[in-house]
Amino acid sequence: MSRKQKAHTVTKEQNKARLTAAAADLIRRRGLQATSVRELAKHAGAPLGSVYHYYPEGKQQFVSEAIELAGCKIAQQLETCLADGPEAGFRAYFAHWRQLLTDTDYSAGCPLAAISLDANARHDVPAALLQTAEVFSRLQAQIAASLHAHGAQLEPAQALAMAIISAIEGAILVCRAQRQLTALDAAEEMVMRLLQSVLPAETKP
Amino acid sequence: MSRKQKAHTVTKEQNKARLTAAAADLIRRRGLQATSVRELAKHAGAPLGSVYHYYPEGKQQFVSEAIELAGCKIAQQLETCLADGPEAGFRAYFAHWRQLLTDTDYSAGCPLAAISLDANARHDVPAALLQTAEVFSRLQAQIAASLHAHGAQLEPAQALAMAIISAIEGAILVCRAQRQLTALDAAEEMVMRLLQSVLPAETKP
Repeated sequence: MSRKQKAHTVTKEQNKARLTAAAADLIRRRGLQATSVRELAKHAGAPLGSVYHYYPEGKQQFVSEAIELAGCKIAQQLETCLADGPEAGFRAYFAHWRQLLTDTDYSAGCPLAAISLDANARHDVPAALLQTAEVFSRLQAQIAASLHAHGAQLEPAQALAMAIISAIEGAILVCRAQRQLTALDAAEEMVMRLLQSVLPAETKP
Repeated sequence: MSRKQKAHTVTKEQNKARLTAAAADLIRRRGLQATSVRELAKHAGAPLGSVYHYYPEGKQQFVSEAIELAGCKIAQQLETCLADGPEAGFRAYFAHWRQLLTDTDYSAGCPLAAISLDANARHDVPAALLQTAEVFSRLQAQIAASLHAHGAQLEPAQALAMAIISAIEGAILVCRAQRQLTALDAAEEMVMRLLQSVLPAETKP
C-alpha cells in the first residue's frame, strides 16, 4: 500500500469511528426510535451521503456498530476501575457515571438501556438487540470474575454482578428524570454494602 | 343531570380512561419518541379524531395523563404488596414484574423509564417529565415509610428505598434485552439481603 493510500485509509477509518461515536451518543441521549440516518448526519455534522457511504445498510448497521463500541468502552472503563479491586473500582465507576450525567446536564445515559427499552428493536435492529443482551452478559462475567478473584464465591459473585449492572442502569435513568444524583448515591451505598457481604473480610477497607 | 346525560358522561369517562391506559401501554412498549397521536389511535383502535377530542392539547396531554395513571397503578400495587410487610411485599412485587415481562414476551416495561431515557422529554413533554421525577420521589417515600414502620431507621430506609427502585427499573430493562428473568432474580436476591440488613431481626423470616 502506498503512503497516500495508507493516509486515505486512516482518514476513512477515523471518519467512520467519528460517525460511530456520534451514533452511540445520539442513542444514549435520544433513544433508538429518534435515531435515524438523517438525525445521525445532523448530530455528527456530516453530510447524509457520508452516513450512507460508511453504513450502506443504514440504521441497522450503525446502531449495531454503536452498541459494539459502547460495550467495548464500558468494558474498558470497568477494567480500569476494577484494577484497584472491587470496592475502589466501583467507587470510581459510579464517579464516572456521575460525571457523565452532570457534564451533559442529565441528557445522556447508557446506550444499552435505550436499545433495551424499545420493543421494536427486535424488528428494527435485531442484531443490535442481540449484541446488547450479550454486552450485559459479558459485563456480568467481567464483574463476577473480579469479585471471584477477590475471594467471592462464584455463584453469589455472578448474581451480585448482575444486580450491580441493574442497579447502575436503573439509577442512571432515575437520575435523568430527577436531574439530581440521589439515585446513583443510594445505589453506590447499596453496592458497597453488598460487596462487603460477598467479599472476605481481609479485602474490606 | 338526567339519566341520559349521566350515562353519556360515564361513557365519555370510560372512553378517555381506555385511551389513557392505551397511551401508558404504548409508552412502556415503544418509548416516548414512537408515541404520537396517530400511533395512540392505532394502538387503541380508536379514530384519530377521538384522540384529539379527549386530549385537545395532543401528545403532551395524553403522555402526562398516562404517567399520572402509571404512577397511581404502581403505587397501588406497591401498597397492596407492602401490606404484608417489606420482605413478603417485595417478593410479591418482583413476581408482579416477572409476570408482566413474560406475559408480554418482554415487550413491555415501565413507562416511567421510557420518559426518563429521552433527553427530548424536557422539551416535548416537560410536564410528564416533572411528573415522572415526582412519581419516583413518591414511590421512594412510600417504600421508606413501609421500611420505617417495620423498624428500619429513617435515613437508611430512604436510601434503600431509592436503591430498590433503581434496581427494579434496571433489572426490567436488562430482562427485556436478554429476554430472560435472570436480572430480576438477581435484583430480588440482593433486595432481600439489603432488607435484612436494615430491618430489625424480629421481622426477619
